Amino acid sequence: MTTTEIGAAPSKKAAPDRPIHELIAERWSPYSFSARAVTAADLGALFEAARWAASSYNEQPWSYLVAAKTNAVEFERLLSCLVPANSAWAKAAPVLALGLVNHRFARNGEDNRAAVHDLGLASANLVFEATSRGLAVHQMIGILPEQARELYRIPEHSEAWTALAIGYKASADELPEGLRERDLARRERKPTSQFVFTGEWGRPASST
Amino acid sequence: MTTTEIGAAPSKKAAPDRPIHELIAERWSPYSFSARAVTAADLGALFEAARWAASSYNEQPWSYLVAAKTNAVEFERLLSCLVPANSAWAKAAPVLALGLVNHRFARNGEDNRAAVHDLGLASANLVFEATSRGLAVHQMIGILPEQARELYRIPEHSEAWTALAIGYKASADELPEGLRERDLARRERKPTSQFVFTGEWGRPASST
Repeated sequence: MTTTEIGAAPSKKAAPDRPIHELIAERWSPYSFSARAVTAADLGALFEAARWAASSYNEQPWSYLVAAKTNAVEFERLLSCLVPANSAWAKAAPVLALGLVNHRFARNGEDNRAAVHDLGLASANLVFEATSRGLAVHQMIGILPEQARELYRIPEHSEAWTALAIGYKASADELPEGLRERDLARRERKPTSQFVFTGEWGRPASST
Repeated sequence: MTTTEIGAAPSKKAAPDRPIHELIAERWSPYSFSARAVTAADLGALFEAARWAASSYNEQPWSYLVAAKTNAVEFERLLSCLVPANSAWAKAAPVLALGLVNHRFARNGEDNRAAVHDLGLASANLVFEATSRGLAVHQMIGILPEQARELYRIPEHSEAWTALAIGYKASADELPEGLRERDLARRERKPTSQFVFTGEWGRPASST
């Protein structure tokens, strides 16, 4: 067990099997956030990064609803769209957002099979930009989409799909016991041999 | 119109409204790939980067089927899973991959609403790593999932969702006319005021 300074955010850098970009290795999803606010310039850059993601037919099917803690009414509105297990810790973050998709192409109304995937591409850009600025993002699937639809008048064919807690990591010391352990746990992943295949599903590619 | 060296890959760096990380600004999806092979070390790092993406409950619901052009049989197998409009240009890439999702949680068999989104997170990591290594990736939704299921014996509840062409950008000079124009076109995006909202869907957030 390593000793960390009291009150310091722990380091949980990945231990990759091969060298990868530092910002990918450094990213992780904390349960603990400090009270430090996110500047408007940083927050704007996060969404600008999302903006430049790839998407099928350049549809850009994503949108975001965002609320900073400095606006208590809006912050509570957004917090109420999370399942209780998430709002319990996410309420500490200085910024919350919902990630939404439009399931249909704007230009012809047809189903966009890529919409949810492309929200992932946009949010990954957002998280990457955040990491480069010393910020952390914890994404959630545990939200209340119909609550969000009602509170934010989300139109038909659009839907809230994820939530994002955005801020600065803090020490896990103040977290309730179950979350503290999750916050301190080592990051684990399957080896690439279990998910990179060639020729047949399940047969490891030689590059892995 | 700018003059580019004959045979050189054009620069299509984004013109963001605010500063963002260079690797996000530089990424784009070419239609033209050079014959230059991707090294095993680079290819391995791309999937290692995907490995460290976030996922709901750390399920890691993604997998990839990969084929390099150096193996003609496997390359043709993978190429046959793309719709003709994509295989027409993607056949030039030295590496092709399919991105797959498992729609159910391994631990309890329940539906994973995050699966397709989390494939997006993993593939975004892969693309980011590629950009940092001078490689380009063009992702596609236009594939033949049932053809892939049959050819690769993809199990029930898993499904091919995307394809990825991976390699080095080349000049658009050799592309057929319609594709050449798309390859040379300026990258366009909606302004953030059209997709970052607060309080109500459609109301621009002040940070935008």
